[in-house]
Amino acid sequence: MNFSSRLLEDAVAEFSKLPGVGQKTALRLVLHLLNQQSEDVEKFSQAITRLRNEIKYCKVCHNISDLHICEICSAVKRDKSIICVVEDTRDVMAIENTNQYTGMYHVLGGLISPIDGVGPSDLNIESLVDRVKSGETGEIILALSATMEGDTTIFYLYKKLKEFNLPITTIARGIAFGGELEYVDEITLGRSIATRIPYENSLVK
Amino acid sequence: MNFSSRLLEDAVAEFSKLPGVGQKTALRLVLHLLNQQSEDVEKFSQAITRLRNEIKYCKVCHNISDLHICEICSAVKRDKSIICVVEDTRDVMAIENTNQYTGMYHVLGGLISPIDGVGPSDLNIESLVDRVKSGETGEIILALSATMEGDTTIFYLYKKLKEFNLPITTIARGIAFGGELEYVDEITLGRSIATRIPYENSLVK
Ligand SMILES: [Zn+2]
Ligand SMILES: [Zn+2]
Repeated sequence: MNFSSRLLEDAVAEFSKLPGVGQKTALRLVLHLLNQQSEDVEKFSQAITRLRNEIKYCKVCHNISDLHICEICSAVKRDKSIICVVEDTRDVMAIENTNQYTGMYHVLGGLISPIDGVGPSDLNIESLVDRVKSGETGEIILALSATMEGDTTIFYLYKKLKEFNLPITTIARGIAFGGELEYVDEITLGRSIATRIPYENSLVK
Repeated sequence: MNFSSRLLEDAVAEFSKLPGVGQKTALRLVLHLLNQQSEDVEKFSQAITRLRNEIKYCKVCHNISDLHICEICSAVKRDKSIICVVEDTRDVMAIENTNQYTGMYHVLGGLISPIDGVGPSDLNIESLVDRVKSGETGEIILALSATMEGDTTIFYLYKKLKEFNLPITTIARGIAFGGELEYVDEITLGRSIATRIPYENSLVK
């Protein structure tokens, strides 16, 4: 692209680094911001830097939180005996939206992916084992995406957790293979949590 | 959406204001930024605020520029006798990319759109008339999108400019009706400039 301005080129280059945003889309977004009031653009960029610099993660479940212990972990009404293990905060939001689940969460912060160089030690797995060790847990739900990485991670967690002799369930695969959890509609996702099955059973095909 | 953090919610709300960005996409983009280094997020937001606060528009053609007179307007080699009238900087970039055009530009900054409340006085039309009045111009190309707004604007400009008795051409409509100029491929766009026709001829159907 022939940019008429270095400032414009820089801003487009930054937007182009976002996932799924090509140069043409980046240019469209940047020109949109350029047409907004200066205060509004300031608000936009402050919201991002504030989030990045002031973000906290719950010390128990690792979900994004404004507090040291998130609202879900500190809620008195929720069932502390079930831990639903998810990839990231989008999955917590998606499952909360179904209103089908009232237990706890554990946010891994990713999935095991040798191609992307993500191994078990890059994820919040040790703290999950510690939570289970502490003895409060009666069931672990592995609610990960129906992808290769999701399956690999489920298998790894299963091996790590089976010694505790707790029911380890996976959410029912109403989800098509390759389906990313956060794009699943609420009804399917809610139902797949309600009809979850023991992990061992999911291996029988 | 049930956000676990106000900071997260604010950042997603800001991204959702961008055109074509829904809440799910906004969340994906924000979580991506959250995973980047703090310096990189700072760079991202600085590029945007700098662009917004330091941007200049060429005093002659109104294109985005880092200088008071843009590089195209000040280039000695370009043909000063042709003015190509376009909607915005994306169109200048698209036409420059074709390498088919060596004249001048005039960036309107939008198209006449009664529905969106954009009238002729909101666009850089008076300064175009002044440029033509100054006598250097030998031809005006109206290179606007093949949309209702584009056609309305072309018709308005034609009425304003015909008193100068200059050839007023429109780019050849190899572009399908409803086609946005900036999404046209380079070959079609280049050819449609090369085969431009007098506006009067385009009215004969
Ligand atoms: Zn928590
Ligand atoms: Zn200029």
